[in-house]
Amino acid sequence: MKKVRVAVIGFGNIGYHAVQAILAAPDMELAGIIRREGATDQPLPWVTFIDENTDISVLGKVDVALLCKPSIQIEEYAKKYLSQGIHTVDSFDIHSSIVNLRHSLDDVAKKNKAVSIIAAGWDPGIDSVVRAIFEAAAPVGITYTNFGPGMSMGHSVVARSKEGVEDAISITIPLGTGVHRRMVYVQLKENASFEKVSNAIKQDEYFCHDETHIIEVADVSALADKGHGVHMTRKGRSGSSDNQIFNFEMRIHNPALTAQIMVSCARACTRRQPGAYTMIEIPMIDLLPGDKDAIIAKLV
Amino acid sequence: MKKVRVAVIGFGNIGYHAVQAILAAPDMELAGIIRREGATDQPLPWVTFIDENTDISVLGKVDVALLCKPSIQIEEYAKKYLSQGIHTVDSFDIHSSIVNLRHSLDDVAKKNKAVSIIAAGWDPGIDSVVRAIFEAAAPVGITYTNFGPGMSMGHSVVARSKEGVEDAISITIPLGTGVHRRMVYVQLKENASFEKVSNAIKQDEYFCHDETHIIEVADVSALADKGHGVHMTRKGRSGSSDNQIFNFEMRIHNPALTAQIMVSCARACTRRQPGAYTMIEIPMIDLLPGDKDAIIAKLV
Repeated sequence: MKKVRVAVIGFGNIGYHAVQAILAAPDMELAGIIRREGATDQPLPWVTFIDENTDISVLGKVDVALLCKPSIQIEEYAKKYLSQGIHTVDSFDIHSSIVNLRHSLDDVAKKNKAVSIIAAGWDPGIDSVVRAIFEAAAPVGITYTNFGPGMSMGHSVVARSKEGVEDAISITIPLGTGVHRRMVYVQLKENASFEKVSNAIKQDEYFCHDETHIIEVADVSALADKGHGVHMTRKGRSGSSDNQIFNFEMRIHNPALTAQIMVSCARACTRRQPGAYTMIEIPMIDLLPGDKDAIIAKLV
Repeated sequence: MKKVRVAVIGFGNIGYHAVQAILAAPDMELAGIIRREGATDQPLPWVTFIDENTDISVLGKVDVALLCKPSIQIEEYAKKYLSQGIHTVDSFDIHSSIVNLRHSLDDVAKKNKAVSIIAAGWDPGIDSVVRAIFEAAAPVGITYTNFGPGMSMGHSVVARSKEGVEDAISITIPLGTGVHRRMVYVQLKENASFEKVSNAIKQDEYFCHDETHIIEVADVSALADKGHGVHMTRKGRSGSSDNQIFNFEMRIHNPALTAQIMVSCARACTRRQPGAYTMIEIPMIDLLPGDKDAIIAKLV
């Protein structure tokens, strides 16, 4: 069996866990890890690390580039690799920009006969697929997505950016019906005013619409585990029958899950026609290794 | 917008609810209902009923035939319509025969440039898609599918078939880890022996592997609502991270849900290349009406 050769682009939380998922996949090979210029440590001695300015061809044939980078940089990185005919997978998570990213990458992917699977994580990602299942099963009704308890990366970054903040994390607490409380733990810089920091966070666009509590702590790093979760629920109507109830719930290690889904999507890249896809546009069987009949016999 | 014209084949529980789901779909038209020979009542005066020996062309152009028939008859009916170039959807539920049915219908579908979506219900069906998501998200681990509480059609039919039984229903009770209790309520014929009936049921292949309780009642029809449910759970490993927990649960009107999923799959037939597919082989977006970008913006 020819293995799918995957390069990991970026070696933060997601990149680290992507490597673990690739090594565990029976049908994949880690081609190498591409880091930003200047990183010189060698945390995995048996893996080839190159920096971003080195031509990726030194890693040999690469089938898929896993873009373990912040959302804001995804379009640039995806185009770089797609234009070389290398499939890409990302976990771009700015929901309001997914349609535009898809159109933009679709063009580049088709021109270069490559596949790009975008927004491949848990939300957007498998939660999106479950929301689609819910709608197909009960077309009339309301779906609520309730996140947490768990650390929100985006909200934590915003809290950290405020003047006087040494470190901060924002924990998302689900209150039901898609309403969330934000518990923000801040570690202040010397002489910083808690009141000023607290007001700056509460007035930020990221926090001002939600119930937000700011709590001062001596050491933020003692609070932050990487567990997270979601509970999605739909009550709806199938045909003329009301009160159809659906629930989906996960309690997961956040970066490990995101990375695993990206790696499963890397496999799907090799099975699709050129173009850009979100996860609701690909059949779930394409995420799984092995023989089609065997998968159908086991799971259907 | 050109509407998808759907004919309903069979007018039992599923057929009735399929009609409701088609009427509620913004992009579909009910072409007519095809019943077995001899049925003469006209329960929906504004719908064209024809019998099975009448040429389906009297209903005008039919895009999709929804096969609301017992599993055992699906292959025959599917081939009949596929060979006329009409897409088919069924809720064939004999898990061990799905791979063979798929191969058999795939040939006929491709020869006639038609699409057949098979095993489209809740299990097999959307449960299958969720099991695939679970595996993609945590490739190492165990998934348990726990059915009920709710009436099992297959087990009820077997209980009814025993000598001395006037009527019977079998209720599936989930005990966890995929283990089920069977509560069988029997209404005996005059002079029938409860002990004989009870032994015959308990020894049947359908019941002998499960904890089975037989209870005599005066009137089975007073017990049987059509609600059902499932709880699927997986604990597994993503990459090298253990203890990833996933749950999916539904509490639903059984025939209404099955029919709705079949109708959503009828839509998907018009968007696929010729061939036969199980639900894990089709993208979930194909089940939904409307513009692709709008669906992605809403659900992803």
